[in-house]
Amino acid sequence: MTANLRVVLASRPTGAVEMSNFRVEHAALPEPGPGQVLVRNLWLSLDPYMRGRMSEARSYVAPVEVGECMPGGTAGEVIASRDAGFAVGDHVVGMLGWQQYGVAEAQALRKVDKNGFPLQAFLGTLGMPGVTAWHGVQEICKPAAGETFVVTAASGAVGSVAGQLAKAAGCRVVGVAGGADKCRHVVHDLGFDACVDYKAGRLHEDLASALPDGFHALFENVGGPIFDALLTLARPFGRIALCGLISDYNALEPYRLKNLRAVLINRLHVQGFIVSDHPAIWPQALRDLGSLVVAGRLQSRETIAEGLMEAPDAFIGLLAGRNLGKQLVRVFPAAG
Amino acid sequence: MTANLRVVLASRPTGAVEMSNFRVEHAALPEPGPGQVLVRNLWLSLDPYMRGRMSEARSYVAPVEVGECMPGGTAGEVIASRDAGFAVGDHVVGMLGWQQYGVAEAQALRKVDKNGFPLQAFLGTLGMPGVTAWHGVQEICKPAAGETFVVTAASGAVGSVAGQLAKAAGCRVVGVAGGADKCRHVVHDLGFDACVDYKAGRLHEDLASALPDGFHALFENVGGPIFDALLTLARPFGRIALCGLISDYNALEPYRLKNLRAVLINRLHVQGFIVSDHPAIWPQALRDLGSLVVAGRLQSRETIAEGLMEAPDAFIGLLAGRNLGKQLVRVFPAAG
Repeated sequence: MTANLRVVLASRPTGAVEMSNFRVEHAALPEPGPGQVLVRNLWLSLDPYMRGRMSEARSYVAPVEVGECMPGGTAGEVIASRDAGFAVGDHVVGMLGWQQYGVAEAQALRKVDKNGFPLQAFLGTLGMPGVTAWHGVQEICKPAAGETFVVTAASGAVGSVAGQLAKAAGCRVVGVAGGADKCRHVVHDLGFDACVDYKAGRLHEDLASALPDGFHALFENVGGPIFDALLTLARPFGRIALCGLISDYNALEPYRLKNLRAVLINRLHVQGFIVSDHPAIWPQALRDLGSLVVAGRLQSRETIAEGLMEAPDAFIGLLAGRNLGKQLVRVFPAAG
Repeated sequence: MTANLRVVLASRPTGAVEMSNFRVEHAALPEPGPGQVLVRNLWLSLDPYMRGRMSEARSYVAPVEVGECMPGGTAGEVIASRDAGFAVGDHVVGMLGWQQYGVAEAQALRKVDKNGFPLQAFLGTLGMPGVTAWHGVQEICKPAAGETFVVTAASGAVGSVAGQLAKAAGCRVVGVAGGADKCRHVVHDLGFDACVDYKAGRLHEDLASALPDGFHALFENVGGPIFDALLTLARPFGRIALCGLISDYNALEPYRLKNLRAVLINRLHVQGFIVSDHPAIWPQALRDLGSLVVAGRLQSRETIAEGLMEAPDAFIGLLAGRNLGKQLVRVFPAAG
């Protein structure tokens, strides 16, 4: 009988996430009930929002309980189905968590027509991160040709798509990323016009010189001192899509923002958002994103951890910015 | 020959505004050129935004230069006109500043048909503060019947109108004000459903118990610890009209906001605004406000300083919250 390897929350982190917050367990292979589907997870997506679910504090979804399987987006293959809509061999995307196999209600799975794309693209550019970027750019920032558009965490799964969407809209796009390698990637591979390395020690000066006339729109993933510095560079009537605050997720105390006054003085529009509030946008967003990928105008990079056992370390790395582009786990590595 | 008393900026404040930052001067009565109008100012409006103009820091308008007349909204009577649109005796509203007489271009004045209202109402409920409240409530907060609506600086010229507009829209309205007297006024005279006294020393507890289910919309005039505490009480998709940050205006360092994360988690919409960006709304706003006043559904209170010489002290009092309702200066007191 096949066992099911899974990663559970062993303890809640205090500040930075540590390996001891996770435990790898062997469980029995689950069996699908009526209307359910059993999936072999081939790819697990690691995303910053998972940090919130490890804490007890109220967030937009309930926390994971200690001892429960870590939640997460997955792409895999149906290996048993008790629902007429799914057949063995179908490719599906779902939220089956940090485990090798999972059972889901049929309506909680999305069947994927790969259509020439690699399966893991449906966890990245053509999945939740891509649609997140699309919503923040097209429905909040609403970029116009000739505007200056800033993206923080510019080399990440969401930021990289956001910046390329703004570029496709005709903006001058400035990224913010950590380290010279990421900045090079953002400019040379992703086609941003400039990228500020926030680790270079001259944050204010470098932002100001990359944004001599300020910015019209900001896709914000980071928060902390970077967001605070950017606030002072907003042009009047600037739009800010607040997608994430990753610099705070491991912090014991939140960063305390100095420049709220810029929101008043420059009459800024700030909108926090979470993609799951907007299920209706998926078809249009995926059409747009797919067309750009096919046209070669939407590049993406992946950082792949080999094997489910590597998920905890890869997740810790994601929160520390070690990844480039979309952080994935290949659940069953080639050798396994 | 009549002299023109005026108050000029003597020095820029460092932190709190002091009497020594002002100087009273006698100047010659100005003469209108072609297309200009000479006005005897009967009422001067004192407003928090003036604090920003006393500082050198960039704001949404240029600072006043040291030695210049303090700027401000005025209501008065035409005493000489070289423009066909204005006649001696006309009542006008303009921005003639802290002085007894002023000359303005005709197009910078608004002729007022008093229509039974006292002239100073056109500096309050039927003027800039009223239209400010109208814009923030109707075009940003967009209150729906049954929602919970919060207003800070609830007894002030803008807040008092904002809360009554939200009440007219069918909301449960909760004010925040400083002191038991103001809170009593807000509930008993203005008709708010509740008012939290932020000076009572139990800010978080009192806000939480006045807002057991959080709030849908917030009209924010204050900032600082009050706004920070309120952020944690926003309901998902809450709307915040950011109109002012008076708690910071006299501060040497801005308050540092802890709860930015609430904007993300609760997908808040935060919009900074300044009424002067929206000249097109005046006719509709004034129609609405006028109807509510006539119907007895829009109460207002005034605090009146007698004589232009009293303007500096009254302005210092405004920033400290000493006034109730609209702070005005009667430029020529009855005895004078």
